[in-house]
Amino acid sequence: MKSQKISEAVVRRLPIYLRFLNELAMKNVATVSSQDLGQKLDLNPAQIRKDLAYFGEFGKKGIGYDIAYLIEKIRQILKLDRHIQVALVGAGNLGRALCNYNTYLRNDMKIVAVFDAMPSKTGETINNLTVQPMSGMKAVLSELGVRIGIITVPADEAQNVANQFVDCGIEAILNFAPVIIKVPPEVRVHYADFTTELQSLAYYLD
Amino acid sequence: MKSQKISEAVVRRLPIYLRFLNELAMKNVATVSSQDLGQKLDLNPAQIRKDLAYFGEFGKKGIGYDIAYLIEKIRQILKLDRHIQVALVGAGNLGRALCNYNTYLRNDMKIVAVFDAMPSKTGETINNLTVQPMSGMKAVLSELGVRIGIITVPADEAQNVANQFVDCGIEAILNFAPVIIKVPPEVRVHYADFTTELQSLAYYLD
Repeated sequence: MKSQKISEAVVRRLPIYLRFLNELAMKNVATVSSQDLGQKLDLNPAQIRKDLAYFGEFGKKGIGYDIAYLIEKIRQILKLDRHIQVALVGAGNLGRALCNYNTYLRNDMKIVAVFDAMPSKTGETINNLTVQPMSGMKAVLSELGVRIGIITVPADEAQNVANQFVDCGIEAILNFAPVIIKVPPEVRVHYADFTTELQSLAYYLD
Repeated sequence: MKSQKISEAVVRRLPIYLRFLNELAMKNVATVSSQDLGQKLDLNPAQIRKDLAYFGEFGKKGIGYDIAYLIEKIRQILKLDRHIQVALVGAGNLGRALCNYNTYLRNDMKIVAVFDAMPSKTGETINNLTVQPMSGMKAVLSELGVRIGIITVPADEAQNVANQFVDCGIEAILNFAPVIIKVPPEVRVHYADFTTELQSLAYYLD
């Protein structure tokens, strides 16, 4: 599946499909049509069929998609069928909020370590995670096999944290600081900045 | 400009261009090429030229884009040349974090009111904003002319808050709760759920 190049837009829609499919599965719904998916997710059904066709023919005419099978397939594609460990740097309000999200994540993708540069935060507990000093990060990430790092520090500290993540062998970074960070090309960075979300929303106001 | 249909993917990239252009402007850089933009933002320069060509011919061969002009144009397209008032419901860790982001937002787009259903939170101050009870929301939003609402409550309260936003005439919602909400078709909803960001990032791990 890796040989096929899947566009970033599709990769970003898959978790949204997955969330809705999980909601249906919890209600014991067995199948869903691309029309129903489209209506619920505000997407064109043809777009949905095209997205899912990337990964093989899962839907059946007149019946729709088998939800359990589709969930399994999307999880495979997104590599959620493996255990992925996540670390977070910056135990402020945002960092705390994200650690509390851990409850919503399945066991296969969890924040397993939290770090902060402020000595006064060391030892604090957030949703069963203990805040650790930056000095111990390399050893901890290596021991736990952490592959994804989250940055929730102020803008002027984000590049420094990114450098340390790279130094620790982190492969992908989710950056919440409102600043662009530089990393080697083999490290993937996604920006989850709230200001850009708000700005793109403003476009849709009349 | 509204007559042209601009894809959601382009609308989502514009704030990212804007952020980088603002960074360059602060360093007194006057022009930038699509190559430089592409390298910095991990996008194909041809894609960037195509995105920006949607809005007219701004770039000059061999010189590149005039940064000040491009900033002005993108701000117009995103309607950031107007004052847009934002309200937030849910003064927990995430809500507090977002209110603290206000500092990074320009005067034209600000969180101007914060609400929480918990009586114990009423009167708390977050970054110069006072948490208000839900009962006063309709009057406050109307008085302040709020058009965008942010939801930062737990998943099981999100739909209720969305209903109240719709009842108050809110035109666009940024939902941080990890659940899909139902609103009338004229209300635009964006999801800023951290779990979907993490899941799409996992795809890029080897």
